[in-house]
Amino acid sequence: MYDYFPISDKAKKMREQLMRFMEDHIYPAEKIYKEQVEEGDRWEEPQIMEELKAKGKESGLWNMFLPHDAGEYKGAGLTNLEYGTLCEIMGRSSIGSEPFNCSAPDTGNMETIFLFGDDEAKATWLKPLLDGEIRSCFSMTEPAVASSDATNIETSIRREGDEYVVNGRKWWSSGAMDKRCKIAIVMGKTDPNAEKHKQQSMILVPLDTPGVKVERALSVIGYDHAPHGHAEIHYDNVRVPAKNLLLGEGRGFEIAQARLGPGRIHHAMRCIGGAERALQMMCERGMQREAFGKKIAEMGVNKHWIAESRMEIEQARLLVMHAAYMMDTVGNKAARREIAMIKVVAANMLHKVVDRAIQVHGAMGVSQDSILASSYANARTMRLVDGPDEVHRETIAKLELKQYRN
Amino acid sequence: MYDYFPISDKAKKMREQLMRFMEDHIYPAEKIYKEQVEEGDRWEEPQIMEELKAKGKESGLWNMFLPHDAGEYKGAGLTNLEYGTLCEIMGRSSIGSEPFNCSAPDTGNMETIFLFGDDEAKATWLKPLLDGEIRSCFSMTEPAVASSDATNIETSIRREGDEYVVNGRKWWSSGAMDKRCKIAIVMGKTDPNAEKHKQQSMILVPLDTPGVKVERALSVIGYDHAPHGHAEIHYDNVRVPAKNLLLGEGRGFEIAQARLGPGRIHHAMRCIGGAERALQMMCERGMQREAFGKKIAEMGVNKHWIAESRMEIEQARLLVMHAAYMMDTVGNKAARREIAMIKVVAANMLHKVVDRAIQVHGAMGVSQDSILASSYANARTMRLVDGPDEVHRETIAKLELKQYRN
Amino acid sequence: MYDYFPISDKAKKMREQLMRFMEDHIYPAEKIYKEQVEEGDRWEEPQIMEELKAKGKESGLWNMFLPHDAGEYKGAGLTNLEYGTLCEIMGRSSIGSEPFNCSAPDTGNMETIFLFGDDEAKATWLKPLLDGEIRSCFSMTEPAVASSDATNIETSIRREGDEYVVNGRKWWSSGAMDKRCKIAIVMGKTDPNAEKHKQQSMILVPLDTPGVKVERALSVIGYDHAPHGHAEIHYDNVRVPAKNLLLGEGRGFEIAQARLGPGRIHHAMRCIGGAERALQMMCERGMQREAFGKKIAEMGVNKHWIAESRMEIEQARLLVMHAAYMMDTVGNKAARREIAMIKVVAANMLHKVVDRAIQVHGAMGVSQDSILASSYANARTMRLVDGPDEVHRETIAKLELKQYRN
Amino acid sequence: MYDYFPISDKAKKMREQLMRFMEDHIYPAEKIYKEQVEEGDRWEEPQIMEELKAKGKESGLWNMFLPHDAGEYKGAGLTNLEYGTLCEIMGRSSIGSEPFNCSAPDTGNMETIFLFGDDEAKATWLKPLLDGEIRSCFSMTEPAVASSDATNIETSIRREGDEYVVNGRKWWSSGAMDKRCKIAIVMGKTDPNAEKHKQQSMILVPLDTPGVKVERALSVIGYDHAPHGHAEIHYDNVRVPAKNLLLGEGRGFEIAQARLGPGRIHHAMRCIGGAERALQMMCERGMQREAFGKKIAEMGVNKHWIAESRMEIEQARLLVMHAAYMMDTVGNKAARREIAMIKVVAANMLHKVVDRAIQVHGAMGVSQDSILASSYANARTMRLVDGPDEVHRETIAKLELKQYRN
Repeated sequence: MYDYFPISDKAKKMREQLMRFMEDHIYPAEKIYKEQVEEGDRWEEPQIMEELKAKGKESGLWNMFLPHDAGEYKGAGLTNLEYGTLCEIMGRSSIGSEPFNCSAPDTGNMETIFLFGDDEAKATWLKPLLDGEIRSCFSMTEPAVASSDATNIETSIRREGDEYVVNGRKWWSSGAMDKRCKIAIVMGKTDPNAEKHKQQSMILVPLDTPGVKVERALSVIGYDHAPHGHAEIHYDNVRVPAKNLLLGEGRGFEIAQARLGPGRIHHAMRCIGGAERALQMMCERGMQREAFGKKIAEMGVNKHWIAESRMEIEQARLLVMHAAYMMDTVGNKAARREIAMIKVVAANMLHKVVDRAIQVHGAMGVSQDSILASSYANARTMRLVDGPDEVHRETIAKLELKQYRN
Repeated sequence: MYDYFPISDKAKKMREQLMRFMEDHIYPAEKIYKEQVEEGDRWEEPQIMEELKAKGKESGLWNMFLPHDAGEYKGAGLTNLEYGTLCEIMGRSSIGSEPFNCSAPDTGNMETIFLFGDDEAKATWLKPLLDGEIRSCFSMTEPAVASSDATNIETSIRREGDEYVVNGRKWWSSGAMDKRCKIAIVMGKTDPNAEKHKQQSMILVPLDTPGVKVERALSVIGYDHAPHGHAEIHYDNVRVPAKNLLLGEGRGFEIAQARLGPGRIHHAMRCIGGAERALQMMCERGMQREAFGKKIAEMGVNKHWIAESRMEIEQARLLVMHAAYMMDTVGNKAARREIAMIKVVAANMLHKVVDRAIQVHGAMGVSQDSILASSYANARTMRLVDGPDEVHRETIAKLELKQYRN
Repeated sequence: MYDYFPISDKAKKMREQLMRFMEDHIYPAEKIYKEQVEEGDRWEEPQIMEELKAKGKESGLWNMFLPHDAGEYKGAGLTNLEYGTLCEIMGRSSIGSEPFNCSAPDTGNMETIFLFGDDEAKATWLKPLLDGEIRSCFSMTEPAVASSDATNIETSIRREGDEYVVNGRKWWSSGAMDKRCKIAIVMGKTDPNAEKHKQQSMILVPLDTPGVKVERALSVIGYDHAPHGHAEIHYDNVRVPAKNLLLGEGRGFEIAQARLGPGRIHHAMRCIGGAERALQMMCERGMQREAFGKKIAEMGVNKHWIAESRMEIEQARLLVMHAAYMMDTVGNKAARREIAMIKVVAANMLHKVVDRAIQVHGAMGVSQDSILASSYANARTMRLVDGPDEVHRETIAKLELKQYRN
Repeated sequence: MYDYFPISDKAKKMREQLMRFMEDHIYPAEKIYKEQVEEGDRWEEPQIMEELKAKGKESGLWNMFLPHDAGEYKGAGLTNLEYGTLCEIMGRSSIGSEPFNCSAPDTGNMETIFLFGDDEAKATWLKPLLDGEIRSCFSMTEPAVASSDATNIETSIRREGDEYVVNGRKWWSSGAMDKRCKIAIVMGKTDPNAEKHKQQSMILVPLDTPGVKVERALSVIGYDHAPHGHAEIHYDNVRVPAKNLLLGEGRGFEIAQARLGPGRIHHAMRCIGGAERALQMMCERGMQREAFGKKIAEMGVNKHWIAESRMEIEQARLLVMHAAYMMDTVGNKAARREIAMIKVVAANMLHKVVDRAIQVHGAMGVSQDSILASSYANARTMRLVDGPDEVHRETIAKLELKQYRN
């Protein structure tokens, strides 16, 4: 597969191993996971996930996302391209990432602490995160302002002596509903009077700090994604030690930039995995079910849709892999256009493919009996995550037009 | 509005009155309704709906769907066209129909019993339904077969002496989860050996008959639509008196045909109401919110979307009103093509308009804070309800091609 | 057809008569017309058209566009709605309008001279135009400026004594290549310092005036539309009597407004006629031709396309008829939104339907053997005529958003 | 650019050289070429092309398509992938291929004679073709049958003694109108009773053989592509020596298969070049032109379109390069799906991008003043060339569904 991309034998082997793991353990667990979430306390990780994680750790397919393979806190040492091919496989299931400690936003948070945290932060937070013992959230988006423009963010991070005082309301802090979630990375203004892109900073806020109020769980098109959950959090005079500030005052955008590229690759490749799964289901259903004396696959527009889906998936995958390759070789900045493109392309492609798969399934496709229903809600949401598509189209167009000034 | 369509002054006045009622009572109740459903037993009608129904009854805007305005069981005596204009208004809110006893599938069921039930059936079921005291469901679709082709239906309705014995598994029996739901109209085969379109019949089955097992609630893209609900029902050796059979053995398709046309108009006009609401929200949000120093409405593709939405809504409304007009003047059969068209057009139009409205709202648009999220799930589902779009496109194409045989 | 619209028996009879005329005379003449244009001087009306016009005049279906049915210069006295239904029929053929003296831009020019010309202008130009003896053009668009914004127009119309001096370069002066074209209505600035919408005026310029240089014929996607033609004209110090100025200085936009509404209805209804013809051809081809052992109509996506086309045509027709009805009852200004909508909807609908028809025809569909090829070029061009779609979408969006200011 | 694909330094250098050649010689010649075609005998190569070919030959960028770089008849020895990157550059201009003797269908014909012709055929036809002295055509499609299914082809190639007698009517024999066209490769049935895929053969027919009647030139959406031209040819009892039959009786599909893959790559990469050119023009126009006080690029939907175009182009290019890579490494057969996909993707992408570019240009974009008009006609036609898209979607869907049989 795509042999011309520089993918090491190690990564290829991991991919094979991962595919087997998915078949052996993950797909069969999907239904059980759902039932256990429904039956128990919705915000507690169900038993089956603990078992999957144990198996994942044992298999060695653990922390594959971390591109550093030496020292105390080491991962698999894969390139963005290589890890991307694994994300596709994990993305075939909505429970496919956590067994390998590779779920968002933890991966981005771990990477951030690894890069910008001090030794104490690493020992306190990175260690248990890498061990899969606790989870984390990322508090950026705010209900009061259009977060597509991150300079709008209003939360204040005010220095007082040896502490910073955090005040603000955040939402879509994904993962924060999970009872194991212990640490947040919060973005806010340390200096509202600084130059526009130097006002924001990021700071580590333990969730048990007084003043942190996790107020409610948000849902996306009917799904609360328990036990993970998307939280609205009120940071109400929350005081943390000054050393919790990452990298330095006014460097929030710098950190955001660093984590954003890889995150996009992960999301996009998971979209491709999700689309492959949907296409597979569409074909299987089409070959099994009959109406008006014909296989559904043979009827009307269905083959047209299968072909369209295949073409869209192949193109999207090549685009994402190419973006990953660019990040690996020329860096995130030079790959800015590519990173913007994959955000738009992958989410919309997934949305279209799942939409068709649902249509082929009939009403079952929107019910809880099919993973397509939640996949659809997810796909629709992906067109908004990390800024709506339109913001990224704007970026792409600006980069294009830039060549024609004068 | 559309004055050239023959709409009586009475209907126009009802429309005005209805619009005021929506403003005064329904829109303000939406949030309360949602909260009461979440807080209480999900399958019990919340208090606020009882209050709205009382107000609806008092207002005289009650049973507007019933085209018969004389005799014991009378409605408003409106044409399909006239009632359609009211459906649009009610369709602006997901709780907009029940306060007027105008929700599906009760309207279709009441109409069916009115037309094909005997006096006893009317006294026992139609009376309390028209009074809004009980509710009803319609059991047609089955999980085991592609229900886009209704001749596939496998439930058996076997005569034994003075009784019929019903055996089969149905799903998407909407409304059956509601504790007030007392009666089902069930479709199934009385004679599997008859000519293909004479095998099926419809029969009244009280839900408290032994053997009726309401097994679970289905959800549509994450929404269970409590307390209404979509039930999977196992009819397990259910015995009902022979007189419960409607119209006669083998006449199920005849009944289906009669109820289908008006139901399509109602659904389609509600879609238009829903789209108008979404467009309104899109405009309001666009004018309130700013990003990158501009009103969101002024940015990128948003005005393009507003214009597209307006054009699609206007066209769809004219098409549906024209279909209703044809049903009123030349009958359902002659309007077959039009009834097929509005199914496809209205649902897809709603889906597109709500999709754009969500995009303009950002992540809030997919959350429980916006009615757009549930509207989106609903719109997606409408493309499958009453048979997937593709079945209706097939009908339209066949009618078109028919003119060119030889 | 659409009986609920107020269409007089007279108009209905004309429609019947027109349909017969098309069958008897126009469709059979299409091929001959094309051949005669190719063989002769491309810019001279071919013989067959003279014959068709003689028959058209004799049939009484002449000057049907003129809504005035009394006095010296009278037409059929039809409403916009009524005449619109005739445009649809004429629009089924690219040579369907001229035999009835109903081609653009002559219809708009005649209407303009009728409304705003003095007696002399009427006697000199309107009379022979109504008699079908000469033809006319409309010089508005300029190559140097974006004419989607008509305030950009730069041609100067300067008063000097009893004359106006016209200077400027125009293009897309349709009809001006035809040797029978004798008169132009030219738009330009009489006062560049006036308030923005009072700068422009319209003036009658006989084409044989010294300084009028018809420089070349423009083509649209390969078609020069001979003998009609789209001319680039250089008005180089062209002097005409002051009385040739229509309505008064600075009233150019007023005249433009008056002629624009009806013109849109005509164009849009012709688009619908063109789409009906394309759909008919798509069905006929689909039923005649076989591949892989099946009728093409039965293959793949073709029925889906037929259904889509039927739904789009029906919706577009209703929208245009509704716009015409509004113009007839509440006036062009109140129908502004509707007039903008039909421009976009009809052209895009035609483009889509013809595109599908071509695909079903295979390569023959793009060749000179099929009217679809020129219809496609025409449809594509219609999305630009009278301002690109985007300008009209902007108008629609603005009217929508206006309701939400404050 | 796409460094991870294995492209030799030689090919990279050729690409650089080619880009300079385009800038220096081809783009400046486009207008002259058009004028010379209009002024002279339309079916004779204009002088400017002779000059460009002389320069092309001199530059060494000659016969780059031929993958064989040794022996008497040698080309550049590039892989499909490498040559594909050159096709993109040549495809930026409609006169960009012939100066390098790389136009279709000559490239495919030369390759066919190289592979399957005997020494005499090579000396007689391949030599002057490679020298750019004569041109050739390919006679496959027939007006009487749906050529999307090539088994439909009805032309007969009957053996009589030492000769074959060819009888049939072909159209879309591209290049045959050119006065320099001397040789045709004709497909037809040698044995109508053989197994379905063994009936057809290919044979060399010199155009001056008695009975070859080039009857007329076909146009595509108004363009006759003079002097190249698309001919309808009547092969009326045409007798050629038996040795002219290529490869052997019944092996026509085999030859078709061999030439088809590379041809697709060439077409698809030229589409990408064409799209890049259109996007460039869209940006340039958007930055130069103003309306309503703003640059057109800043208005409405234009940036959205620029971004969409960029995303579509990048994806399509990666898909085509990947297909070429597969052909180079695993062969045409294993790349069957990829070869089907690029046909559909590249043509539709080009069509969309050019459509947007035209819309940004306004009416000028459809006129002869812009290359966009002819590019649009070309793009539309590309969706039919080599079989309509639908045939290829069918292939893709079948390959996908094949995995799910049982």
